[in-house]
Amino acid sequence: MAYDKQNIFAKILRGEMPCIKVYEDKYTLAFMDIMPQADGHTLVIPKVEAETLFELPNSYYGPCFETLKKVGNALKKAFNTEGVMMFQLSGEQAGQTVPHLHFHLLPSSIQTLRNTRHAAEMADQEKLKEIAQRIVDALEE
Amino acid sequence: MAYDKQNIFAKILRGEMPCIKVYEDKYTLAFMDIMPQADGHTLVIPKVEAETLFELPNSYYGPCFETLKKVGNALKKAFNTEGVMMFQLSGEQAGQTVPHLHFHLLPSSIQTLRNTRHAAEMADQEKLKEIAQRIVDALEE
Repeated sequence: MAYDKQNIFAKILRGEMPCIKVYEDKYTLAFMDIMPQADGHTLVIPKVEAETLFELPNSYYGPCFETLKKVGNALKKAFNTEGVMMFQLSGEQAGQTVPHLHFHLLPSSIQTLRNTRHAAEMADQEKLKEIAQRIVDALEE
Repeated sequence: MAYDKQNIFAKILRGEMPCIKVYEDKYTLAFMDIMPQADGHTLVIPKVEAETLFELPNSYYGPCFETLKKVGNALKKAFNTEGVMMFQLSGEQAGQTVPHLHFHLLPSSIQTLRNTRHAAEMADQEKLKEIAQRIVDALEE
């Protein structure tokens, strides 16, 4: 399927839509999920037209893992936990809701996924911004 | 924490414990989860002493992504679905049960995780072997 350039993450990458950013480099962007399944639920996306994991070019493998580790370590600090869950849904049948590859990172346990619905409820923006700041601070430590 | 060389995946990598293998290369091994949360639940592990995502050396980034894509594509074929979920639990607090980094791949949706418990019930070995063969066949197509 052709990549949909009008998907919301493509718009965020082009600066046409806002996001609550926690980290950015040349290849990746990390920002708060606006429908979090736990406090600190962050998304990491590559800056490339890839709908699912299967379209990720190999030049993005390293940057994606590095950003996942960087943000994941910040989540551990910011939320005082040793546990970080990462998940990635490829395809609508897996539950993917935005057709741009995104990795979910949560300072939380797999039990959280059992008890919350995916992409179900909008978070309070101010609370999200406070949480993002805690993550940014942890990234800078 | 020091890597525990006696964990079950370390034993599998050394050939001291059996596994139902679907794919192997120099850097990675993929085999059936013996407590599957859905048919086709496969684990991908790097052949390196890494307990969590945070200890994965960068030389394994590419091989891990390549194997996840390869096995993920085989799952799509073998189970006739476009949906593949990947998840990875780092740390006991996230729900990690074996202290060797492993990526879960399921030809299934995030809803599955809501309805099944993690690492809860042993699967029938013969059924697992049949499923593994379907995946191996899809890998060879």
